[in-house]
Amino acid sequence: MDDSRIYLFDSTLRDGAQTQGVDFNVLDKQAIAEALDKIGIDYVEGGWPGANPTDDAFFAQPPGLKRAKLVAFGMTRRPGRSAGNDPGLAALTGTKARAVCMVGKSWDFHVDVALGISRTENIDMIAESVIHAKTRVDEVMFDAEHFFDGYRANPAYALDCAKAAFEAGARWIVLCDTNGGTLPHEIERIVGEVAKTIPGTQLGIHCHNDTENAVANSLAAVRAGARQIQGTLNGLGERCGNANLVSLIPSLLLKTDYKLGVDREALKGLTHLSRLLDERLNRAPSRNAAYVGESAFAHKGGLHVSAVEKDPRTYEHIDPALVGNRRHIVVSDQSGRANILARFRDIGLEIEADDPKVASLVELVKVREYDGYAYDGAEASFELLARRELGGIPDYFRVARFRVMDDRRWNARGELVTESEATITLEVGEERLMTVATGNGPVNALDSALRKALLAFYPELEDMRLVDYKVRILTPSAGTGAVTRVMIESADGTGERWSTVGVSPNIIDASFNALHDGISWKLYRAGAPVRSDAPKGAARKS
Amino acid sequence: MDDSRIYLFDSTLRDGAQTQGVDFNVLDKQAIAEALDKIGIDYVEGGWPGANPTDDAFFAQPPGLKRAKLVAFGMTRRPGRSAGNDPGLAALTGTKARAVCMVGKSWDFHVDVALGISRTENIDMIAESVIHAKTRVDEVMFDAEHFFDGYRANPAYALDCAKAAFEAGARWIVLCDTNGGTLPHEIERIVGEVAKTIPGTQLGIHCHNDTENAVANSLAAVRAGARQIQGTLNGLGERCGNANLVSLIPSLLLKTDYKLGVDREALKGLTHLSRLLDERLNRAPSRNAAYVGESAFAHKGGLHVSAVEKDPRTYEHIDPALVGNRRHIVVSDQSGRANILARFRDIGLEIEADDPKVASLVELVKVREYDGYAYDGAEASFELLARRELGGIPDYFRVARFRVMDDRRWNARGELVTESEATITLEVGEERLMTVATGNGPVNALDSALRKALLAFYPELEDMRLVDYKVRILTPSAGTGAVTRVMIESADGTGERWSTVGVSPNIIDASFNALHDGISWKLYRAGAPVRSDAPKGAARKS
Repeated sequence: MDDSRIYLFDSTLRDGAQTQGVDFNVLDKQAIAEALDKIGIDYVEGGWPGANPTDDAFFAQPPGLKRAKLVAFGMTRRPGRSAGNDPGLAALTGTKARAVCMVGKSWDFHVDVALGISRTENIDMIAESVIHAKTRVDEVMFDAEHFFDGYRANPAYALDCAKAAFEAGARWIVLCDTNGGTLPHEIERIVGEVAKTIPGTQLGIHCHNDTENAVANSLAAVRAGARQIQGTLNGLGERCGNANLVSLIPSLLLKTDYKLGVDREALKGLTHLSRLLDERLNRAPSRNAAYVGESAFAHKGGLHVSAVEKDPRTYEHIDPALVGNRRHIVVSDQSGRANILARFRDIGLEIEADDPKVASLVELVKVREYDGYAYDGAEASFELLARRELGGIPDYFRVARFRVMDDRRWNARGELVTESEATITLEVGEERLMTVATGNGPVNALDSALRKALLAFYPELEDMRLVDYKVRILTPSAGTGAVTRVMIESADGTGERWSTVGVSPNIIDASFNALHDGISWKLYRAGAPVRSDAPKGAARKS
Repeated sequence: MDDSRIYLFDSTLRDGAQTQGVDFNVLDKQAIAEALDKIGIDYVEGGWPGANPTDDAFFAQPPGLKRAKLVAFGMTRRPGRSAGNDPGLAALTGTKARAVCMVGKSWDFHVDVALGISRTENIDMIAESVIHAKTRVDEVMFDAEHFFDGYRANPAYALDCAKAAFEAGARWIVLCDTNGGTLPHEIERIVGEVAKTIPGTQLGIHCHNDTENAVANSLAAVRAGARQIQGTLNGLGERCGNANLVSLIPSLLLKTDYKLGVDREALKGLTHLSRLLDERLNRAPSRNAAYVGESAFAHKGGLHVSAVEKDPRTYEHIDPALVGNRRHIVVSDQSGRANILARFRDIGLEIEADDPKVASLVELVKVREYDGYAYDGAEASFELLARRELGGIPDYFRVARFRVMDDRRWNARGELVTESEATITLEVGEERLMTVATGNGPVNALDSALRKALLAFYPELEDMRLVDYKVRILTPSAGTGAVTRVMIESADGTGERWSTVGVSPNIIDASFNALHDGISWKLYRAGAPVRSDAPKGAARKS
């Protein structure tokens, strides 16, 4: 057996499913299991047969995994029953999964308080359950629940529990830090001590992130000899989550000599795998996630950017392409010339580094950010600011005035209703147009009125829509009298998305500025000509 | 010197400000610095003098910190200049901050590639800058950038850089894992080797989270001898963030024998401190954050819950109250009931557990929370909801209708202005009153008009004011047509603060509901009688 081979055990579909707010269906489970198999995970724990209808349906028609072993999860037999006569064990060992993982107690306090049985009976439960399961499936693992708390309280008893499973023939004895409170140096010491009795090649580690050390704890256990790591994608899991396999895999593969089932080619799918889980859960991916986050290779400080341009190793610990991620240069208050020039190149804007306009643009960005603008979340507004300063953006339209009215009153049916109505006077070239629209609030009404008017001139806007609207008050100590920043995200029929920002003491004004930028950017990108009069056909459309 | 004392250095306002999407203003910086001081952080790094207008404004009027030392950040002198003639060093050492932290290179590759100077010149820059700064401020620290990458590449040179700062008199030599790629065992080995030359009581550690090991790396450095930890609140920071002080503080205080400036009493403010930062950034706090997350002590269903009810230690690594957090039992009607009864006790509302009104209130809260109300951050609205249901709150006033108008137009002086004006028709007892007021936006105008009308009846409102106003869109996929939740924080002359919530598809309506609750709560707490006609004196005041 190769002593440097680390086996990865994914519990996203079992322990991860315990997360507050997570609710996988069978299709989710199948898709995730297949993706885990594809990247090279050794064991895929699919769920707990008998615990709920989803898990039963999943095990009834398990996905065809090419390399990974599918694992069913359950408990050792109940107290006072024989292993052969325990319905839980029967459900656990009766699925199509070739491997099972069964949890049992190893902390004397839990045996006494939570189970209320004798300590000998607990050891019998472990041994007999493993022996029984071995007659029904290929591979049996024992999850020693609360092993580290148990070992601190009563090392001899905790070790006896682990040994009972080992001697009964379990392939893996997995040491669990169930409450997640153990620090890395303790994990390393305790695993090292256990490895004197049970070979490290049969020891696993299962950590939770309650002190933000689950990844480090898993690494510490490996250094002490353990050769199986249990974890989840994106660290999904109850409370603070489980050890994050998405962080562990590249650290092990790129920074140590251990061997994995995941190879360098498969590693390029890591960012995609991480985002796939978030998509399934309808969550926004964490920008700051190690290796795979959108910001993981983002550079904001001016000095950093100029160094990265010279050699990315100056501020990147690995090449982002190795994990399927990419570099991202950010514009902000912190930025210097190099930053802004790099951003210009990204948006395809050609300007020489020594052009005097660069200095004035850097200054302009700084002043605007001091006023409350934030361009690093609003790339489209940044592009417009730059192109306007360089004279590249026409005035597609001018708003002569607008008026928004919000009215709360009792209607004819005796209901209290609030209605918003916006009137806008727009100038496009020589034409002047006035429209009115209602909406679910002043900004929605304003957006509708503006779009109604503009469609007469710019049919390019037909498929554009707002997809997000965020408000931040910048000086909260002044309450509703404060300066407001509005960020708007827009999208069109091609799937393109862009973000714009507006700032003003008046929230309506700030919203309007962000809307204005959103529309202008779309027209610029669509290559729309400046219309000086409305095409007849389009005008009728409005 | 006490060898077990760990000094905490917070870089939220400097390195944290590098985070993509983070944009502190001066008020944010002041409030966060004061909160860091209060909990017992030793060093508060305020920013980089001379780098941007916000940091300059912050250092021009620094907050009065009671215990923490304020630190200014900057760089060693530039190549080819004397330290006394370097504008950066002059800005760094010329503020009211008594301590400075200056960054310099310690990786030969960076000296060669990023700076392009001789290695001797780099060492001179470090030594001369420290010596010069020591003549102008009380305490000088040296941030050895890329120390771990540098040590791996050329240990002798990296150590020479650190020694140059040490011998020049720097109080702290901070070893930075700038690119965040180093694993805990390497950190422990390298810090241990450096500590043979520079005493650990003068070594600091500065980690980034690019492998999800920043917390563990900081702990590893401390075990190897370092006695200063640099980090940020909630792990804020560029790319994947910095070491998270919010996780490190309780681990060190509750699980090791090291001593901190934070004591057990202050530790109870940790959850509040973490959420304060998120509030300032208008971010949803991470539910899964170690120690302080809303889910950090959540127990979902079944076996865990019944064990926790027998003894919380069965599934909790610490008592959540130690860090100001709380246990959270998820789902089950029974625990919903217990939860809500516990919240009643918190607000001093006495009700028997078997009162039939409890069941209808539990139902009402569930329905309202499903609609988008969030009572966790809006205790005053929760209290009003409960007391109204129990018949304890009178209708102090009724709004017959209101109308808000926002007008953007060119004024007589040729300026584009946006004005908001609100008209409100109010009924108090038999009286009917109509007022009008203007404001910096529709909500501000509405608030002014409402207050103007009510002051005639309720002089108790004289000293009440809005202190915060937050908006969150609850179904972002629908853009500005989505459901909006508004949270308002109010305060009065006694220093009392209370929060209320309003939800509606219409942002103005949601804002008005939150305002209405804020005023009603104040009147209820002040014991105001329901006025059926305006006192003459008060009426004249308006």
